[in-house]
Amino acid sequence: MEDEIFMKKALILARRGLGKTSPNPMVGALIVKEGKILGKGYHRKYGEAHAEVIALRNARGDVRGASMYVTLEPCCHHGWTPPCVNALIEAGMSRVVIGTPDPNPRVNGKGIQSLLDSGIQVKAGVLEEQCRELNEAYFKYIQTGIPFVTLKFSQSVDGRIATKTGRSQWISSPETLRLAHTLRSIHNGVLVGIGTVLVDDPSLTVRLAKGKNPQRIIVDSRLRIPLKAKVLHDEMVDKTIIIATEGANRKKAQSLKHLGAEILWVAKNHRGEVDMEDLLKTLGRMGVTSVLVEGGAKVITSFIRERLADKIVIVMAPKIIGEGIEAVGNLEIRDLHEALRISRMKTTRLGDDIVIEGYLREGSG
Amino acid sequence: MEDEIFMKKALILARRGLGKTSPNPMVGALIVKEGKILGKGYHRKYGEAHAEVIALRNARGDVRGASMYVTLEPCCHHGWTPPCVNALIEAGMSRVVIGTPDPNPRVNGKGIQSLLDSGIQVKAGVLEEQCRELNEAYFKYIQTGIPFVTLKFSQSVDGRIATKTGRSQWISSPETLRLAHTLRSIHNGVLVGIGTVLVDDPSLTVRLAKGKNPQRIIVDSRLRIPLKAKVLHDEMVDKTIIIATEGANRKKAQSLKHLGAEILWVAKNHRGEVDMEDLLKTLGRMGVTSVLVEGGAKVITSFIRERLADKIVIVMAPKIIGEGIEAVGNLEIRDLHEALRISRMKTTRLGDDIVIEGYLREGSG
Repeated sequence: MEDEIFMKKALILARRGLGKTSPNPMVGALIVKEGKILGKGYHRKYGEAHAEVIALRNARGDVRGASMYVTLEPCCHHGWTPPCVNALIEAGMSRVVIGTPDPNPRVNGKGIQSLLDSGIQVKAGVLEEQCRELNEAYFKYIQTGIPFVTLKFSQSVDGRIATKTGRSQWISSPETLRLAHTLRSIHNGVLVGIGTVLVDDPSLTVRLAKGKNPQRIIVDSRLRIPLKAKVLHDEMVDKTIIIATEGANRKKAQSLKHLGAEILWVAKNHRGEVDMEDLLKTLGRMGVTSVLVEGGAKVITSFIRERLADKIVIVMAPKIIGEGIEAVGNLEIRDLHEALRISRMKTTRLGDDIVIEGYLREGSG
Repeated sequence: MEDEIFMKKALILARRGLGKTSPNPMVGALIVKEGKILGKGYHRKYGEAHAEVIALRNARGDVRGASMYVTLEPCCHHGWTPPCVNALIEAGMSRVVIGTPDPNPRVNGKGIQSLLDSGIQVKAGVLEEQCRELNEAYFKYIQTGIPFVTLKFSQSVDGRIATKTGRSQWISSPETLRLAHTLRSIHNGVLVGIGTVLVDDPSLTVRLAKGKNPQRIIVDSRLRIPLKAKVLHDEMVDKTIIIATEGANRKKAQSLKHLGAEILWVAKNHRGEVDMEDLLKTLGRMGVTSVLVEGGAKVITSFIRERLADKIVIVMAPKIIGEGIEAVGNLEIRDLHEALRISRMKTTRLGDDIVIEGYLREGSG
């Protein structure tokens, strides 16, 4: 019980790094002796000190013989910073309580082993599920090399994103807009189809939340993007990646490169569309660890149909539109038992809207 | 403040009559003297004593000079029971606090006037919105002669009720089934389209909740209902009403009458379908005060399109089906600002499902 209470505090600390630690995981750490907290730390930013080291630095009083609570297994390898395990041993910790092992092959149990080898008591797996969920994107990426994919879209309660005539000037509440920007800030890629660019001309940047701008990715197999599209003209943001397939105009590709965009040539699937699995693998190799897919319907449908989405966030407006453009199109499902199940579903109210959140792949996160 | 606290208690009492008082409203009453509750009552059943009289009967101690809290204006006319106003005057109440005036033209302010004329202090409009919502069906029916209409259906989060091939064997949780039966018990009519009878052959009775069976209404313009349909063979329930239009087979109508069904011939609208407005007016004249519409998609779409639904209850399963049969079809909406707004929307979790509840007509309830 006491272990869970301290781990919960470490989790809260870890979350302060939200949107800033990528590609590193968020980590929180607490030093406790005789029921008193002597030190606290969290990983603030990629390249900076790890949570455990910050907790040791900030600690007041004699930490020798204390317990360290840390949400993720301490590292035992030299990266940007020296291994945390050494710091814990040197500081004289007598017990280390760990949320979840680190799936990074350079750590993965080796951190725990090093601690045990030095005679430190180790307890692993305290609030393990929450500790994994905190870094769900990191866990997937480090284990598969494929970015964690979150689909996010707004629809009416009857599942429509626009009327039959394509009218989709969606009126979002300020709260919903802020959610959209926060989601961008906690992913390191944001992806939309060319249809969305042609209709909405979005910037895809983070303005209404704190945090980094994600890498912008436009699926545009035939390179139809207008040269004046906003995503091509924002010097504050990393270059935009445009996904094209064989046969797209090479001259247009050249013009886009001149504007600073990167063209990524990806394979077609049997439907003649961008092969999203191939795309994700390529993005993974480029270091993109998580992708927020914001639409439109065609892209969302592809990701769901190909079972490539890990998480789904649906903002539901209190409206009924009737026959129109559905957020989710043909999934080739014939029987109800083939329907995709949303697991660990949560609902929250956000202004007038309902936000439904859940997982499409069991074991994700 | 104190008045609101006692009115809240009266509201809780009133709700005990849920599903039993129709066509009467639910009413709760409390007798309070010097901050102490001396008596409580609620209207238990159509034809039995009113809440105020029951509270007086049950009261302990001397009620002279006490206050009466009652969720609805006391009646001043002779119905099944003598007027409550007289009972309050005779009992020597010095103050009457009323939730909402009774819209029934035989009462509507006259009850309040009688009390004032006898020198009793009256305060009306305490928790008025809740008191009106409690009897939303009664309010609409008494004011318009048209039954209060609730639409209820189950869908996936993407708005589908079945796959493309029509497979709709929906797996409902026990909680969701109980909700469906409770909704039936608090309406005095339940309506489905012939499609639902042909596919699901439902009984449309109340089995998993306490309360009365509603009048069963089948919209079946061409009288396609099979003679062995369950709704035609349940002696415990009132005769089923089948809605037909001009041109339906008279012989089949005769066979259905032999089975105890009632055939109601209703006008067609310009689409050649049952004119739902005409139907509702007819049902209203027959004394049906509230109708629960359970499906299928065609009937639900008609009620929404014709703006005939007051309330909507959507049970959303944590599933994604993709292209299939949508719960809500063509509403002839071209522009997003024409979309129907769900007001006073509430969401609750029921097992794995989400229940979304709200109003489609402002001023309903």
